[in-house]
Amino acid sequence: MIPSDKELIKAHERIKHFIHKTPVLKSESINKIAGCRIYFKCENFQKMGAFKMRGASNALLQLSETERHLGVTTHSSGNFGQAVALSAKLSQTKATIIMPNNAPNVKKEAVKGYGASVIECEPTLEARETTANEFVNKTGASFLHPYNCYDVIAGNSTATIELLEQTKNLDSIIAPVGGGGLISGTALAATYFSKAKVYGAEPEGADDAFRSFKKGEIIPMINPNTIADGLRTSLGDKGFEIIQKHVTDIFTCKEDEIIYAMRLIWERMKIIIEPSCAVPLAILLKNKSKFKKQKVGIIITGGNVDLAKLPF
Amino acid sequence: MIPSDKELIKAHERIKHFIHKTPVLKSESINKIAGCRIYFKCENFQKMGAFKMRGASNALLQLSETERHLGVTTHSSGNFGQAVALSAKLSQTKATIIMPNNAPNVKKEAVKGYGASVIECEPTLEARETTANEFVNKTGASFLHPYNCYDVIAGNSTATIELLEQTKNLDSIIAPVGGGGLISGTALAATYFSKAKVYGAEPEGADDAFRSFKKGEIIPMINPNTIADGLRTSLGDKGFEIIQKHVTDIFTCKEDEIIYAMRLIWERMKIIIEPSCAVPLAILLKNKSKFKKQKVGIIITGGNVDLAKLPF
Repeated sequence: MIPSDKELIKAHERIKHFIHKTPVLKSESINKIAGCRIYFKCENFQKMGAFKMRGASNALLQLSETERHLGVTTHSSGNFGQAVALSAKLSQTKATIIMPNNAPNVKKEAVKGYGASVIECEPTLEARETTANEFVNKTGASFLHPYNCYDVIAGNSTATIELLEQTKNLDSIIAPVGGGGLISGTALAATYFSKAKVYGAEPEGADDAFRSFKKGEIIPMINPNTIADGLRTSLGDKGFEIIQKHVTDIFTCKEDEIIYAMRLIWERMKIIIEPSCAVPLAILLKNKSKFKKQKVGIIITGGNVDLAKLPF
Repeated sequence: MIPSDKELIKAHERIKHFIHKTPVLKSESINKIAGCRIYFKCENFQKMGAFKMRGASNALLQLSETERHLGVTTHSSGNFGQAVALSAKLSQTKATIIMPNNAPNVKKEAVKGYGASVIECEPTLEARETTANEFVNKTGASFLHPYNCYDVIAGNSTATIELLEQTKNLDSIIAPVGGGGLISGTALAATYFSKAKVYGAEPEGADDAFRSFKKGEIIPMINPNTIADGLRTSLGDKGFEIIQKHVTDIFTCKEDEIIYAMRLIWERMKIIIEPSCAVPLAILLKNKSKFKKQKVGIIITGGNVDLAKLPF
């Protein structure tokens, strides 16, 4: 069942020793360019460098001691894997992460750095799921789904709970959409605790949520093609139900618009963000009149970039 | 005369509307690698992206209205030029910046973006000084020296005043040494307001302060060769006098050690810093036993990097 307001608050309480309360940053020069006031919730400064720590730790902390004793596993292109690995380490649990063989090196190394084992597989959703199922059947480990899971969604919502505490009267919040685990948590928290409207942001090259939202049913993403590697995932049904109820609209943008927005944040704010989190700013700059003079929250999802492969 | 404790406090009061109080950040994973506790004073988040805003605004604000009416000028490889340009803009003063023709593009563009004029010259100290003298003689503008000036040193000291307020009982503070304007301000503030020892950090390819400190007289830098472009400048005599009195030691490091430390800060802290500010961490990692278990302050001097020319 979709988590209630009380469950979101409980999740925040549950994970508080596993996460940082990340800062909200502003940039006068970006506000000038955008024509509105932007509040960046900086989950790139989160433990392991991404908001995924929130959902992963909340899901892991709901397992029984017996379950944890058998270990946990997940499949992830990177950040969720790191999040499970670190959450497992912090709670003395063994973690095994299934990763596509084309995941950025920095992410594979980080997972191993947190003491987890890595199993590589082909970079398809099918290969990931098969490999994970085989591992679960063999070991009895608990499978934590990266996004299609209410505990993960509730954990992710806590970034927005904090954002709302750290700001006043936001008009809008924009979050990127990959599997739907962040945007749905964002939408729940915004609906329960504020009057802010929530918008989704997607690359044109991975626009399944946009198309699914417009059609009213899930259209899976086939061959996504975008620099925003965190957003290549197909939308899950649990997130989609919440999106349909609580997200106002979803916008898409082009690759060069993502790179421009990413560079703007790097140069003006001096912070390192992944391409995925530049998508909301790209959307905002493309739809300036819509957000004119508003107070807009943007979730900066993570900062785990392969510095050897920058787009500029 | 070397600024007194009271003059440093006055400078801080004078410039407070021209600067941000920048945050002090920590990184558990870098502390683990270094074997001590490091407090990074993040002047990369300063207005215009560098600590130079402090010294420039303090020097400019000491001019009379008549002097400001004739304009200000300086020569700078970049950050001080931007700092004078922005300070001038904020106080309705005309600024003209003399820049070496090999300065990073991002710095030239930023100076122009703040409404200042740019005059390019050959990349030698002699060419800079001649061009600046000619301009002053022609226009009557006030020349603000980037580092060899007590008002600039007092302004720069305010970063350390804040660092000492934001932390408790630092054992050491490490700052990079270029012209000596930052390290001397750092050393004055640390001497007046704390028990912390101050150390200078230099690249081997621009080690004039190291050699001057050891010999007891200024040995100018000829043909500096380092990625740390902010540290290629030769040491000024005003800064040197303060260094001799109040700096405990100066250490040098190699280029690959600078690049390693820079990458470590980018990857672990998700913040963008110039190569110059990686030098103190490189020094610390090279001399771990010296700083073992200490509380160490490091001045992160700026974040104005040409993203098209990264060393990784």
